[in-house]
Amino acid sequence: MSKQKDNKGLTVKKSENFSEWYNQVVQKAELADYSDVKGFMVIRPNAYSIWEIITEYFNKRIKALGVRNAYFPLLIPESFFKKEAEHAKGFQPEVAWVSNREDERLAIRPTSETIMYDSYSKWIRSWRDLPLRINQWCNVVRWETKATRLFLRTREFLWQEGHCVYETEKECEEETKIYLKEYEKLCRDILAMPVLAGKKTEKEKFSGAKYTLSIEGIMPDGKALQMGTSHNLGQGFAKSFGISFLDKNEKRNIPWQNSWGVSTRLIGALTMVHGDDKGLVLPPKLAYNKVVIIPLLFKGKEKSVLKKAKEILEKLKEHDPILDDRDYSPGWKFSEWELKGIPMRIEIGPKDIQKKQVIIVRRDNGEKIEVKENDIEKEVIKLLENIQKSMLKKSEKNFKEKIVSVKNLNELKGAIEEQKIAKADFCNKGECEESLKEKVDGAKTLNMPLEETPKGKCVICGKKATEIVYIGKSH
Amino acid sequence: MSKQKDNKGLTVKKSENFSEWYNQVVQKAELADYSDVKGFMVIRPNAYSIWEIITEYFNKRIKALGVRNAYFPLLIPESFFKKEAEHAKGFQPEVAWVSNREDERLAIRPTSETIMYDSYSKWIRSWRDLPLRINQWCNVVRWETKATRLFLRTREFLWQEGHCVYETEKECEEETKIYLKEYEKLCRDILAMPVLAGKKTEKEKFSGAKYTLSIEGIMPDGKALQMGTSHNLGQGFAKSFGISFLDKNEKRNIPWQNSWGVSTRLIGALTMVHGDDKGLVLPPKLAYNKVVIIPLLFKGKEKSVLKKAKEILEKLKEHDPILDDRDYSPGWKFSEWELKGIPMRIEIGPKDIQKKQVIIVRRDNGEKIEVKENDIEKEVIKLLENIQKSMLKKSEKNFKEKIVSVKNLNELKGAIEEQKIAKADFCNKGECEESLKEKVDGAKTLNMPLEETPKGKCVICGKKATEIVYIGKSH
Repeated sequence: MSKQKDNKGLTVKKSENFSEWYNQVVQKAELADYSDVKGFMVIRPNAYSIWEIITEYFNKRIKALGVRNAYFPLLIPESFFKKEAEHAKGFQPEVAWVSNREDERLAIRPTSETIMYDSYSKWIRSWRDLPLRINQWCNVVRWETKATRLFLRTREFLWQEGHCVYETEKECEEETKIYLKEYEKLCRDILAMPVLAGKKTEKEKFSGAKYTLSIEGIMPDGKALQMGTSHNLGQGFAKSFGISFLDKNEKRNIPWQNSWGVSTRLIGALTMVHGDDKGLVLPPKLAYNKVVIIPLLFKGKEKSVLKKAKEILEKLKEHDPILDDRDYSPGWKFSEWELKGIPMRIEIGPKDIQKKQVIIVRRDNGEKIEVKENDIEKEVIKLLENIQKSMLKKSEKNFKEKIVSVKNLNELKGAIEEQKIAKADFCNKGECEESLKEKVDGAKTLNMPLEETPKGKCVICGKKATEIVYIGKSH
Repeated sequence: MSKQKDNKGLTVKKSENFSEWYNQVVQKAELADYSDVKGFMVIRPNAYSIWEIITEYFNKRIKALGVRNAYFPLLIPESFFKKEAEHAKGFQPEVAWVSNREDERLAIRPTSETIMYDSYSKWIRSWRDLPLRINQWCNVVRWETKATRLFLRTREFLWQEGHCVYETEKECEEETKIYLKEYEKLCRDILAMPVLAGKKTEKEKFSGAKYTLSIEGIMPDGKALQMGTSHNLGQGFAKSFGISFLDKNEKRNIPWQNSWGVSTRLIGALTMVHGDDKGLVLPPKLAYNKVVIIPLLFKGKEKSVLKKAKEILEKLKEHDPILDDRDYSPGWKFSEWELKGIPMRIEIGPKDIQKKQVIIVRRDNGEKIEVKENDIEKEVIKLLENIQKSMLKKSEKNFKEKIVSVKNLNELKGAIEEQKIAKADFCNKGECEESLKEKVDGAKTLNMPLEETPKGKCVICGKKATEIVYIGKSH
């Protein structure tokens, strides 16, 4: 039974060297590759198909909320950047410029507030034009100087950026929260992982925003990962870009705006959270190919086994199954598809045919299940649902175990040393937050849950607390 | 019955000033807008939804052919460009460079052969890795110096670019044709328009290709529009980028490649072909909202009419209908949705409710149809199919009328003067083609049909013909 190919399996354990483990999974599962352009990545088909599923799901959700997709120019004139001072200051250091074409330098968009709001100022005339809700799926470039981490920190990434305009502050506030809730839901229902949802501190908010809401995942190494943000922009950009509207009383008003985004970073998050020592583990909802069928081709029985395998392929076609009939050993194939994270494999050999059954092996927990051939369609559907659920359950358990409540600076230090995320009372003052870095090596505030009230004193400075905050190391 | 709003209708007729008519339709139907960045456009939601439908359709088609989507870096090192000499020469003048970030200048991709094939050279090792079929949907930048025409000629556009690698020349040849056929099918079945499919002359082929196949639409002004290309790249790029594979006999070989693309230019084409003096006319298959329901809200009857309109909205929801219950006059609304090209409108008033009917008005030909309320679901489905079919029929008729066979230079000149596309025998020699421009003002070769043989002499030079060719003016 057939040729071997170089073993492409992982050479390091997740628990032993998390960082190297992550790099190997991403590259060996063919999710992404480094490019010859420093800091840029190639998103390979195995990962791009995940992004397509996220896109499709999220488009349905936001269309139901009245959002429409559009596309704005890649290049932004330097003068646009200067219009909103805070925004310009925040992004200037990361911009790549095109300077060989026009008198004015053109920025490759690091984000599109400025170019979009220039158009909005032409399109919005009256209250009848509001709310305006537009989203775009596109690439952005930010010249990161830290080391590249595929999906987590690259100079180019793909994302969606939603940009809405409202008549009233109240509507804007409400919807800024709604989009954050959508991100939470996307993570829970599709990526099978919980997140911390809350408000960023003043220090950590988006350049130009009134405030920023975020979702933060907790990775197995105890570091948080910012996975999505929803910014209440207030009226700042509207003023800078001259966006105004006539209200129902024919009075000129300045509208309220928000912007919100998630990126291909999500793919890095799910890789870290669900992966194991065999490689990637895909939640079924993110797997384009949900099943791989591996015929056990014993000498002399090849024909009948292959015939049966093809029958099963046909029966399961709604799950986009793969039939791996290549000339490799079954063991090699098992490893290959485990590495790539396909949610379940179906083994079929001569004995199974006799017993009118197949063996199904779950990727998430390795469980082997004998399934009667007649039950296969409904069993696969049930199992895919179970896998999705139990992956969420497992990641929720890990998530909860990573969070510890701390009451004072010592406990905070202890938590960070133990690679946990600390939950603490906080005064939300800039100077206090500034001192955190010195007091607790590498720690930073993540976000502040929206509907919880502190009972004690600030964990950092000991003064009166006004917020609850999550503190941790961060990717 | 209600307020008026500024009339946004067209102020020019399609037959009188085609170019201005096109600009007005694109902007007033809110398909696209100029941006403050010279030569760049904003693709507005009404057009982006068309692009999404094209994307969804085409993804299904190419996935069935074994193509997988991926994403490669936006920026390409200058040195990559220089690797394939012809390619570099062809694109160099149009490149926007980023030079503030790395020692080497980085090009914003005008097309991605070079950056993709650099990765291919790392990924392809043996015949088992072939065929490799990868596609990406992305933005590209080419610094056009001619005047901007929205969708037709802008410095940035969206497209898909497929890039495949094969073991044999034969496979490559066959599939280069298959992708062209897919483009033809996309135009016919979805855009409801025929195209000329054929081979570009040596002079007009893609920089770096062995040969280029193209589809060319014929616009109402008698000019052709190149709408898609499929390039047989031969082994040139593979050699330049060091792509090779071990064949079944463990011998090292150079593979064969093709690349193929269509862009947001398609949206310009369908606007020109189907639009009329009232605005855009969308083929039903490209309309996200296929129906608009307009309640005729006579005083005192508003409630019952609106209730009925909402019932119909619910019945037709699979077609993403719009219910326009805004406070404008019905006439104003009719014009608005005609301008935007929604395939059919449904009028419902108090009398219709009495008669248990609605009035359906087709956008393509203005026909008014009384439909019994109980038949509405099946009637709408039937009508949408009919509209799609009759739009194709009409565009085919116009297409055929625009093509004339010519036998000599005088006839060719006559055809071009009459704003027709000429079909002629042709020698396919470079110097002969060069002389065409002088001999017939503004005319150029479009493409050469693949399965037709010439019987006479070259229409330009009078020497022996080896091909049939289409000649015309071109957008």
